[in-house]
This record gives sequence, C-alpha cells and structure tokens, in this order.
Amino acid sequence: MAEILKGKAVVGQSGGPTAVINQSLVGVIQEAVGHSQITGLLGARHGVRGIIKGDFIDLSKVSGKTLEDVAVTPSSALGSTRDKPDEEYCRKMFEVFKQNDVRYFFYIGGNDSADTANITNQLAVQSGYELRVFHIPKTIDNDLRVTDHCPGYGSAARFVASAVMGDDLDNRSLPGIKIDVIMGRHAGFLTAASVLARTREGAGPHLIYVPEVSFDEDKFAADVDRVMKKYNRCVVVVSEGIHFADGTAVTTKIAKIDEVDGHGNVQLSGTGALGDYLSTLVKAKLGQKLRVRADTFGYLQRSFPGFYSEVDAREARMVGRAAVKCAVQQNVDGSVAMRRTGEGAKYAVETFVTELTSVARQTKSLDAKYIVDGNDIADSYRDYVAPLVGQLPTTGYLF
Amino acid sequence: MAEILKGKAVVGQSGGPTAVINQSLVGVIQEAVGHSQITGLLGARHGVRGIIKGDFIDLSKVSGKTLEDVAVTPSSALGSTRDKPDEEYCRKMFEVFKQNDVRYFFYIGGNDSADTANITNQLAVQSGYELRVFHIPKTIDNDLRVTDHCPGYGSAARFVASAVMGDDLDNRSLPGIKIDVIMGRHAGFLTAASVLARTREGAGPHLIYVPEVSFDEDKFAADVDRVMKKYNRCVVVVSEGIHFADGTAVTTKIAKIDEVDGHGNVQLSGTGALGDYLSTLVKAKLGQKLRVRADTFGYLQRSFPGFYSEVDAREARMVGRAAVKCAVQQNVDGSVAMRRTGEGAKYAVETFVTELTSVARQTKSLDAKYIVDGNDIADSYRDYVAPLVGQLPTTGYLF
Repeated sequence: MAEILKGKAVVGQSGGPTAVINQSLVGVIQEAVGHSQITGLLGARHGVRGIIKGDFIDLSKVSGKTLEDVAVTPSSALGSTRDKPDEEYCRKMFEVFKQNDVRYFFYIGGNDSADTANITNQLAVQSGYELRVFHIPKTIDNDLRVTDHCPGYGSAARFVASAVMGDDLDNRSLPGIKIDVIMGRHAGFLTAASVLARTREGAGPHLIYVPEVSFDEDKFAADVDRVMKKYNRCVVVVSEGIHFADGTAVTTKIAKIDEVDGHGNVQLSGTGALGDYLSTLVKAKLGQKLRVRADTFGYLQRSFPGFYSEVDAREARMVGRAAVKCAVQQNVDGSVAMRRTGEGAKYAVETFVTELTSVARQTKSLDAKYIVDGNDIADSYRDYVAPLVGQLPTTGYLF
Repeated sequence: MAEILKGKAVVGQSGGPTAVINQSLVGVIQEAVGHSQITGLLGARHGVRGIIKGDFIDLSKVSGKTLEDVAVTPSSALGSTRDKPDEEYCRKMFEVFKQNDVRYFFYIGGNDSADTANITNQLAVQSGYELRVFHIPKTIDNDLRVTDHCPGYGSAARFVASAVMGDDLDNRSLPGIKIDVIMGRHAGFLTAASVLARTREGAGPHLIYVPEVSFDEDKFAADVDRVMKKYNRCVVVVSEGIHFADGTAVTTKIAKIDEVDGHGNVQLSGTGALGDYLSTLVKAKLGQKLRVRADTFGYLQRSFPGFYSEVDAREARMVGRAAVKCAVQQNVDGSVAMRRTGEGAKYAVETFVTELTSVARQTKSLDAKYIVDGNDIADSYRDYVAPLVGQLPTTGYLF
C-alpha cells in the first residue's frame, strides 16, 4: 500500500463476448486517463495471447466519439481469446510487462480470467515486481461468485426473455411444441430469465429446465404431455448444459458432438443438436405426428447489436471505472463485485473489491430456492432479475 | 361494380407470422369502422379454420389502446393456420359467410392465402353470392409476385442484417468459421439482406448462399478455404432451402428430417440440422481441428418483440387500410401490391390492386442480377433492401 506506483496499464478482454463488455473497456479507458500514475494505456489484442506477442493498441489516442461507438458495440472490441494460461504462459506475459514498464493489468472476463489475473498476481509478488492486477467481471452466465450479478448477464437475459416472449406468441398463433435451447453450461441463470416472458395466464414458457437439476427423459415427456393437455401447446426452455442424474451431459448422448474446447469442455454452443435431440425424444414418446420445433438461440444471445439492458450497460461501465480507481487509489489487487443497496423500483448497486481467489476457478449456481418441481422457475426470481433486464416490450392481445 | 354492397366483414391471418402482420390487421380494423357498408367486423381465430368453425371475435369493440398494443406485437393476434383449403373447405367457409351476412373477406397471408382468397372468390361468383375478397400481402420470404416487396420482409431483413452484423463481430473477437442458417425455402431475399451487415472491408458475411443457385459441397468448402486464407475467419450465411444441382434439398441428405407439413414440404425451420450438417462438412473437407460453429436463427427472425422496421410497420398498416378502401369504394376483388415511387433517401411507395390470380400459387425468386459468383450478393441489392430495413445500429472499432 501507501507508496505511489507509476507505470503503464494493460487492459484485455477474455472469453465469450457480451453486449456490454466494451462498456467495461471504455470505463477503464476513461478512468485511466484521469490518473497520473497511469503513464500509458495499452489494449492487448485477443487478451493474454496479445500480451505474450506484444500485440498492443495505444488506447490513449482513441477519440471520445469512437469510444462511445465502441461502448454500444457488442463483442470484444480488442478481440478475445480462449487461451487459459498456465504458469509458463503467465511468466511470458510478465516478461512483456517488465519490458514495457507495465504496472497495472486489467482483465475483463469470467472466472477463468480471474484465475489468470490471480496467477499473474502471484508471480509478480514472488518475483518482487510491483504490479496491480484487477479482474473486471463479465459473463452472460452470471455464475461468478461474490458479486450479486455479472455485467453482461442483464443484456443476455433481456435477449432471452424477449426471444421467449416472441416465441411464445409465435407458438400461440401456430400451436405446437416448441423447445428453445439457451446458453449456460453449468448455471441456469440465463435460462431462468425466461420466466420474465410469462406475462399472463397461459403464456409460456410452460416448462423451464436448468443444469442445476438432473434431467430425466421420462419426466420431461410427461411434463410436456401434461402441458399439452392443458393448453394444447407447450413452450419449453432448456439450458444447453442439462445433464442426467449420473452427471453425463445430455449432449454427450448425441452423435457427432465430439469437439472439445481448450478447457476440456464438450462443444455446446454453435450447434442445434440438443434441440433436435429433444424434439426427436418428444415425438418418440408422445407421438410422431406432433408439431415439434426447436430453436437454439446461439450467439445472438450475447452479440445482438443495438440490443442491451440500460442498467447492464451502465453497471458494466461502472465496474470498469471502479477497477482502475481501486487499483490506483487503494493500491490493491482484486476483482470488482457489486452488491444491491436497493430493491425493486429503488434498485441500486454499489461496487466493492473482493480477492481474486474468491472469484477465480469456481463458479456459482442458481439458488435451489428459485427452482420449482425441477421444471420451473419461481416467481420470486423475477424480483432478482427484472431490474437487471429493464422494461420488456408491451404486447397486446385480442383473446 | 356500381351498386353498394352492405354487410359484415371477416378478417383472418394465415401462415407464418411476421413482426408486422398485426399492423395490417389493425389497418383493416381502423379503416373498416369508417365505412357504413361494413356493418360488423369479425376476426376469424386461426384463419380459415376459425371461419369454418364460426370461431369469431367481434373486432368492432376493441379499444384504440389495445389496437396500438396489438399492432406492435409480433405474431398473429388472431391466431394463424397452415390449413390450405380445397374447394370443399372453401364451400364450408362460404356457408358460414352466408349465415352471418358476410360480404367482405380480408385475408392476410402469403401466396397460399391469395390462392384461398381466389378460390373463395370464384365460388362466390359461381353461386351468385356478392362477396368482396381481398388478399393482404404478408411474408418474411418476400416472394410474392407483382408487389415490389412484402410487408413483414423489412422487419425480418432488419433482424437478419443485425444478427449477422453481431455475429460477425463475435467471430472477429473469437475467430473461426461461423455458419448462419436463414429462413427461406425457395427465395433468397431474406438471406440476401445479410449483405447489409458488411459495413467495412473484411467484415462478414464473407459468403452468401441462396436457394436460387445450386449448392455444390466442394465449391462451398473451397470458398470457405479461400476466405480463411485471406481473413483467418469466415462468416457464411445460408438459406435453409439450398439444394443440389439435381433439385434435391440439402436437408433431404440429413437423417431424421422426415417431417412433412400440410403443404407437402419437408420441415426446414425449427431444427439446427442443416447448420450442423454444413459444420461437419467443412470439418471433413478442411480439417477436423477447425473451430466451426453454426447457428440457425429460427423463429426469432419473424417474432422478436419490440424489433421491427419502422417503414415495414407503416407499410403493413397501409396495405391493410388499402384493402378495405378498395373493396368498399371500388367494389373490386384483388390483392394489394406496392410500387416504388422514390428511391434512396426519397424512398416512397404507393399501393395498387392486382388480381388474386396474379399472386396466388406461384412465387418470385431473387433476381439473378443480384447473385455474384454463386456465393455472394451484389452491392446493388443494398439499394433495394436498405430503405425497407432502415438505419442499422452504429458500431465502433479499435482496429
């Protein structure tokens, strides 16, 4: 603490993009220019990969107009990476930092990025190199620990709630069984946001399945059958990461889904296989003549231009600024988190700093209190998610 | 002609919904109340199916506030149907019309709906029952003949152009091969609209495949390979209806796609099978280790709430009003069409009446002049489509 650390700052973006990840980046840039301790601001192209290659952009020269355009543009303006650095990789980054007199490192990402930040931080401590390291939270999955919610989630949740609302209307005009597959490998937060689409009696989603609950094919078919008997139509929302009681992901049952990413995960996004599998399952169990359709919302959930939650955008910028402020003024390392200071119409948050280790690696799941009968989300979840999503479009009905 | 025909009017919606089909409905309702020849206005629930069942809603009692809410709500507010009436079916409708003193029939839909309108009209003429029949155009496919473009297309095109723009940004931050499957069984208009996403050098879509061109798997792989060598990433946009040189749809090669709808068509929408097939194809031909993802935009293209083109919304309402005006004042039958009276910044249209037979059954394809090398869309298509879509979101770049 205490003494003033002066040098350049590096900022990077990591993992899957969001609609507001650039708000956080712009928050970092805008805050950094106001602190004399930060003598230069380098943007790492494609995250840690850009750092080890020395592939930087000088961010101090970007115009205010461009910054505001970038802020409202989805996807990572600096480029992103799925690289998950080990110690050796971090050591290389660290060398580049030394060469460039970098004293501040801001990394915008999920829990893997927090882990990268943490490893880098530990190496800096070990070698006696003064470096302030801050993780800035970002994930549409909303699965980071400590923080009340994650920047990026509100906008993706807004997309999902809107999409399911529209899809339910579509299904209402041409009744049948409709299955929508939502992003979310381990956590059901994004899928749970679809409960906001249920704006009136009889409206879908009629069934919601999250990865926090074991998926049972017979129960699923029985659930759909029951809804069909009641409404003569059924809108089902499913997390891409649903798994059976033995822990096997449903997707592993599907042929040709054999791609594994850099983190050892089976590919879930960018394929319609799960939705198609569930369609086939419903027909096999309930009748081949049923009209069953499946859509996988895919990357649109995180990268639809011009579509974001205002609250989410504001908070994403705020956490970017907060990281710089805390690093410079408090001379600490950590991850920025948010806590609510007001609920409902008086919704408000404040930021605070949490240790990198408290966010790194592990993730958070949807609280069991929000899950009803293994196939639905409680109304109380609306209180949590609605302020993050903002007002949804008005809809009118003739019957 | 000449004498005044007085009686009730029936309005119905048919086929796949759009973001603005309810604008046309509201146009019909608002215009109908102003004409004394129309003594009552009945909304048929689920199109022709509601007519033969006598399942009507009294639309003269709906408040102005509700009408405006309905107008901006995607999907068919009266409910839709895929029923394609034959003569026998039309005869039943006709009986219900007689029983209810219905003298005006407005049917909002595509070419199948125009055909239904035409058959009903012919039966009315044969039996000497005075009935004015009007088809009101609606289709995201934009494939109706005579009219310059179809209400519903501009909003869906706006969705597609926005989605591909966002997806290209996503692909830019995490480079790889991305395949987006767009609605369109026979016509490539909607897929072609993705050309609007290409806002700068190097931006995708890099390849565009429409059903007007025979699809060749080897050429496809070679195209992707060439783009990858140039940009190290590739965004491909494909119509769901692409087919091989022998006329077989690519989807027919894919197992489990065996559902056939009421019109004898293989199911294309509501499945991710085509995208997944093309992903597998690219990997097989270019390398298993490539990062290849596919999204199928699905029903979101036609039913995303709060998302529409302003021009499209205005025109959809206009054609609804025009149908009522023409039926009542000119005492003719037909389909409402639009022609451009101004281009570019001075874009404007006027409506005119065309015969039902000129729109019924057959459809229109994308003009060959817009198709480049079998894998791209000419810049000149922007002049046609941009005014229908409106201004797209601003995007900012750091490199």
